Amino acid sequence: MNSKLNPNYISGFVDGEGCFSVTFNKKKDMIRPEVRLIFEIELREDDLEILRRIKNTLGCGNIYHLRYLRYSKWIPHYKYKVSNIKDISEKVIPFFRKYPLQAKKKYSFERFYIVSQLVLKKKHLTNEGILKIRRIYGLK
Amino acid sequence: MNSKLNPNYISGFVDGEGCFSVTFNKKKDMIRPEVRLIFEIELREDDLEILRRIKNTLGCGNIYHLRYLRYSKWIPHYKYKVSNIKDISEKVIPFFRKYPLQAKKKYSFERFYIVSQLVLKKKHLTNEGILKIRRIYGLK
Repeated sequence: MNSKLNPNYISGFVDGEGCFSVTFNKKKDMIRPEVRLIFEIELREDDLEILRRIKNTLGCGNIYHLRYLRYSKWIPHYKYKVSNIKDISEKVIPFFRKYPLQAKKKYSFERFYIVSQLVLKKKHLTNEGILKIRRIYGLK
Repeated sequence: MNSKLNPNYISGFVDGEGCFSVTFNKKKDMIRPEVRLIFEIELREDDLEILRRIKNTLGCGNIYHLRYLRYSKWIPHYKYKVSNIKDISEKVIPFFRKYPLQAKKKYSFERFYIVSQLVLKKKHLTNEGILKIRRIYGLK
């Protein structure tokens, strides 16, 4: 059962369970941090089917099984994740601009959208661009 | 901004954030426990608007402010709650039968629906009915 979902259903579900984030990774030999846009939804493993249907409806992303063997009481989860900038800008963002989020997560999505525009213009490869992106997220 | 929401959006949101429950309250002088059906959504206080819009779309229920003064670090919440059996059976249940839940919460809704049928037939006022309802929830 990987049938597609009503797009408004997905907006509602993501308003509750989704996460739009920007990460900055800086390794030793890099001049500036690598900026990455990530859209993800993490659910307990008995809710895998809905993640498959969201993936199928959005037409991108991957699903990962998360198990922490160290924590025996922790119920394994599945994570649906899109981090490819092409998929983010051509699929995820147009989808949520067409079927907008309605709860406070819409502000998180707005920042995510602004950063995606900067990344598409390669601004994240300049120090000025990195500063701008960090400021959008209230970081120094 | 209390404008109505797309009903499929609500199904998606409730699949993530909503709760359908049945409670059994037994006081000293009662022959059998009182059965109550409750539909609720609890969110942090900065998401009050979406609760108002859900209330407006479903056309029933109340919103409560939850503050626990004992826990200073706990962010106050708002709870949208429907517990009136008339509203549950004439508004909440028909809504989610028309715009079905898609994630695993649909099983919780199915049990809730079955119990509502028993309550409407006054079965919860008999010992046999109470037993039946408890069995639906895997209780002894």
